[in-house]
Amino acid sequence: MFAPVDPDKLRLALEAIFGSRRVSLRLLDRQTYARDMWPRLLLARRQGEAPAHVPNAVVWPEHVREVAAVVKLARELRVPVIPYGGGSGVCGGVIPLFGGITIDLKRMRELRSVSGEDLICDVDAGMNGERFERELAHRGYTFGHFPSSIYCSTVGGWLATRAAGQLSTKYGKVEDRAAGLTVVTGKGEIIETDGPNRALRGPNWTQLLVGSEGTLGIITSARLRVAPAPQLRVYRGFELPDVATGIIALRRVLQRGLRPAVLRLYDELDTFLASMGHKSDKESDEDTARYAGASAATGDFASAPLPPVDGGALPSWPVPEPSERGGWMSRLVTLARDEGARKRLMKSASRAAQNAALSRGSMANRLFGAAATTAHRGCRLIVGLEGSRIRTEVEAQLTFAELEAAGAKDRGEEPGLAWLAHRYAVSYRMSPIFRDGAFVDTMEVASSWDRLLDLYHAVRGALAPHAVVMAHLSHAYADGCSIYFTFAASVEGARNAERVYDAIWKDGMEAATRVGGTISHHHGVGLLKAPYMAAEHREAMAIFRGAKAALDPDGILNPGKMGLVASRKEAP
Amino acid sequence: MFAPVDPDKLRLALEAIFGSRRVSLRLLDRQTYARDMWPRLLLARRQGEAPAHVPNAVVWPEHVREVAAVVKLARELRVPVIPYGGGSGVCGGVIPLFGGITIDLKRMRELRSVSGEDLICDVDAGMNGERFERELAHRGYTFGHFPSSIYCSTVGGWLATRAAGQLSTKYGKVEDRAAGLTVVTGKGEIIETDGPNRALRGPNWTQLLVGSEGTLGIITSARLRVAPAPQLRVYRGFELPDVATGIIALRRVLQRGLRPAVLRLYDELDTFLASMGHKSDKESDEDTARYAGASAATGDFASAPLPPVDGGALPSWPVPEPSERGGWMSRLVTLARDEGARKRLMKSASRAAQNAALSRGSMANRLFGAAATTAHRGCRLIVGLEGSRIRTEVEAQLTFAELEAAGAKDRGEEPGLAWLAHRYAVSYRMSPIFRDGAFVDTMEVASSWDRLLDLYHAVRGALAPHAVVMAHLSHAYADGCSIYFTFAASVEGARNAERVYDAIWKDGMEAATRVGGTISHHHGVGLLKAPYMAAEHREAMAIFRGAKAALDPDGILNPGKMGLVASRKEAP
Repeated sequence: MFAPVDPDKLRLALEAIFGSRRVSLRLLDRQTYARDMWPRLLLARRQGEAPAHVPNAVVWPEHVREVAAVVKLARELRVPVIPYGGGSGVCGGVIPLFGGITIDLKRMRELRSVSGEDLICDVDAGMNGERFERELAHRGYTFGHFPSSIYCSTVGGWLATRAAGQLSTKYGKVEDRAAGLTVVTGKGEIIETDGPNRALRGPNWTQLLVGSEGTLGIITSARLRVAPAPQLRVYRGFELPDVATGIIALRRVLQRGLRPAVLRLYDELDTFLASMGHKSDKESDEDTARYAGASAATGDFASAPLPPVDGGALPSWPVPEPSERGGWMSRLVTLARDEGARKRLMKSASRAAQNAALSRGSMANRLFGAAATTAHRGCRLIVGLEGSRIRTEVEAQLTFAELEAAGAKDRGEEPGLAWLAHRYAVSYRMSPIFRDGAFVDTMEVASSWDRLLDLYHAVRGALAPHAVVMAHLSHAYADGCSIYFTFAASVEGARNAERVYDAIWKDGMEAATRVGGTISHHHGVGLLKAPYMAAEHREAMAIFRGAKAALDPDGILNPGKMGLVASRKEAP
Repeated sequence: MFAPVDPDKLRLALEAIFGSRRVSLRLLDRQTYARDMWPRLLLARRQGEAPAHVPNAVVWPEHVREVAAVVKLARELRVPVIPYGGGSGVCGGVIPLFGGITIDLKRMRELRSVSGEDLICDVDAGMNGERFERELAHRGYTFGHFPSSIYCSTVGGWLATRAAGQLSTKYGKVEDRAAGLTVVTGKGEIIETDGPNRALRGPNWTQLLVGSEGTLGIITSARLRVAPAPQLRVYRGFELPDVATGIIALRRVLQRGLRPAVLRLYDELDTFLASMGHKSDKESDEDTARYAGASAATGDFASAPLPPVDGGALPSWPVPEPSERGGWMSRLVTLARDEGARKRLMKSASRAAQNAALSRGSMANRLFGAAATTAHRGCRLIVGLEGSRIRTEVEAQLTFAELEAAGAKDRGEEPGLAWLAHRYAVSYRMSPIFRDGAFVDTMEVASSWDRLLDLYHAVRGALAPHAVVMAHLSHAYADGCSIYFTFAASVEGARNAERVYDAIWKDGMEAATRVGGTISHHHGVGLLKAPYMAAEHREAMAIFRGAKAALDPDGILNPGKMGLVASRKEAP
């Protein structure tokens, strides 16, 4: 299928394109670019194992023509090319299964233009997410995309994986804000899909390429829709008795046409663990106070006159420092690791709850039952709204009224501000946990509203025998919603841990597909979910294979991912 | 390329699939299905000419399996298949250039299900547009798609052409409401692209197939997003001094995040012709009064309690009878035909306007100048909002305030209600005009805001030497807007008329492309705009060709349309 690589020849050919400073064949670089943040790779890494697959070379292009040139070279040499952004993916999408050339796009990082007149910007794929948002904020705009990886992910990575940010309920997923892409195909052609126009005549090439994770083309820049920076920001906490009631509440809000930026419903265990921490965490309170101040400042601003949308500065989104707190994840891992902790938690549960919980037979279910019943805290719901002053005020009142009509109890501003203060914290907690011998991962699935409670129970039920599992619902739409499961387990030995890890994913993905849910909502597919693509997409995989054959006839673009056969020219 | 057809053999093979009653090889049927509402075809028809291209047979499937079977048969026989909906297309998209089998989908017309829980319906492609909306209205929902062809177009036709309805500024174009499709490919495979889930993992097959006009697959049913029927409807007229000011006003509204359902800005000539008619047209006034009543009834309803979104009936959209009025089009044609009328109009213009207008050198520009200056009416703007009561009230106030801040003068409710009453009238005025020897057509283009005024002047300037031309701007987005030109000419002799008609389109399309506009916004491409596809899409046509090769390897699906080569197996 792919040709063997002569390193010296490869180096010479690459240096002809990039010069010597932007090419590396050093083992350290190749090992660094061999992986992303897929937790399964961290399991191996904590044992000191070297990556099983490394690229033959890493290059750092600065122009789309260099990307086209390296793809043409790779085609000539019959070696794979793998685009690489921030490396924050969690599905192994950048693993060079067949070696080849890894193309780090982070030197293509310019915000080329922002048109206030069209609310469109033109930005390079390698632009860092947080810098992108900061540069837009300085000009009075927002892209509205705030994934928890924002400090370590790129615009191109978002587009390649159909990412969603924390405020997606208002601003949409990244694909909803993509007007056009510049893409290098597997033939080395440079293609522009649509422009800043609403030019949706004929099939939409942009939406074919967004989410293709480097298998159909390499995204080098994009025309993206921006929005005026918000004038007002309102955050609030609510409490629902249970997940089922919460689902109805979320659905009512969305189907009334309301679009809060944040609408996150935590299940009982997630709510319980968060509340445990909240009381004892002084630092957390200080942070909350700090952001309450920030919010007050935004509040003052609300009475300022409306600046023109095509100019004038608005205050930027208050960007917090990456936090090493986020205590609930530690507590989840503690529960996974420490039987004593589980027993103490059980003990505090009522007799009835203990009986009910025990009859279900899995550790996680027992914990869930005990925690929920003991705490009587129900399910926490965080609501955030932002935008222009009057509309946001009206939308907030209508949203709160809708939630209360659905049985939600208003818990005031404080839980909302606490969430705002810590919203990026979780991503920075993972590495220390792995160092300590446990593992934690997340599984995000989605379905229409009518299947959502089934999906919640099916996936939680599938994961519960293996791990402690909690979930929140977020990214809601008029027609459905996603569920974000977090699970933790502590298993002795890397091989055992990998076996449990794989079983969790197999059982979870099969459960999701069985009840008509999706295998992903915004983390992408990569290598992790590739085995489950066919069951979800069925006959439609023919379209994917067709597009692949047309755009990458030699199969050199990120081979072996997303359920596509590694190479069309594979030897028997 | 395609094989010669033996009619007897074809009949036998088709009857094996459809029985004898749902197959026709009669000449009358074949001629009927040889055309759509493309005005160029009407020019030939008024001379009594038979269609140049007719299908070999017409079939009426009732199930997706029959569609798959006939496609497989066509592939075997090497003859084209052309899907056919309402026949209301205006670009010649259904002309059987190479004969073959025309598949009329109108017997597949069931509204299979409506899920109030997910706000999703499942509907067959052949469902008539007006019936679809009426059936949804009875259940308390709306699809929100109201093209002027609604009485004679189908859901499948909308999807195949990426259509837009009159309320698209609120509800989106049809592609924005498509969650998933069932499609038969050129291999006869039945593919479902996505479902009712927000399952946008991986590339989006739905958006590849929407707008492909039968060249990549035959859409047989669709999962579409519906909305709760509106509780309140607010219509109003405004007046702007000129198009340039109007564009700024529209942009301000959209970029503030406001989404009125209707936002239509008429240029000076369009405004003038409409106002001429309005004063003298008693019937029109009666109609307005009738719809003012309808609106009042809706107003009453606004104070009724909010019914549950997942059930309960709301009053249906007041559907008017097709009207044979719509006097402005007659007046436009009169101006195109009658030099005396043009002179009288000129005479009523001021001396300064006459001098200024005459110096520009084209009939249409002279008329435009004279009409605008004489009437001092500026540009009419129709604004309509609908939705839930409180939000619509707030959105209306904010929209009106934004318009007034941009220089618009409020002209009260009456012009808005008059528009509402006559909004479908235009489509039913075309045939009589052609019978009388003139022709009229529309050209809809789009661009980002920064190019929109250039686009208006460039296309109007390109059309003006050939025809009387007027325009309105509608279908606005945060990043741009479409312009809808209407032009009329009266040319002696069918061949001469065709020559002028072709020159208009060539000059108009080239002008649009030159200033960075699109060649279409919602009428599609078909045969009419096929020659201009390559100039607009450039390298991206490689993706289209690739998708075509994958989904229709023998090129039997609607060959010769949309700028694709007629057949991959074309003989030299």
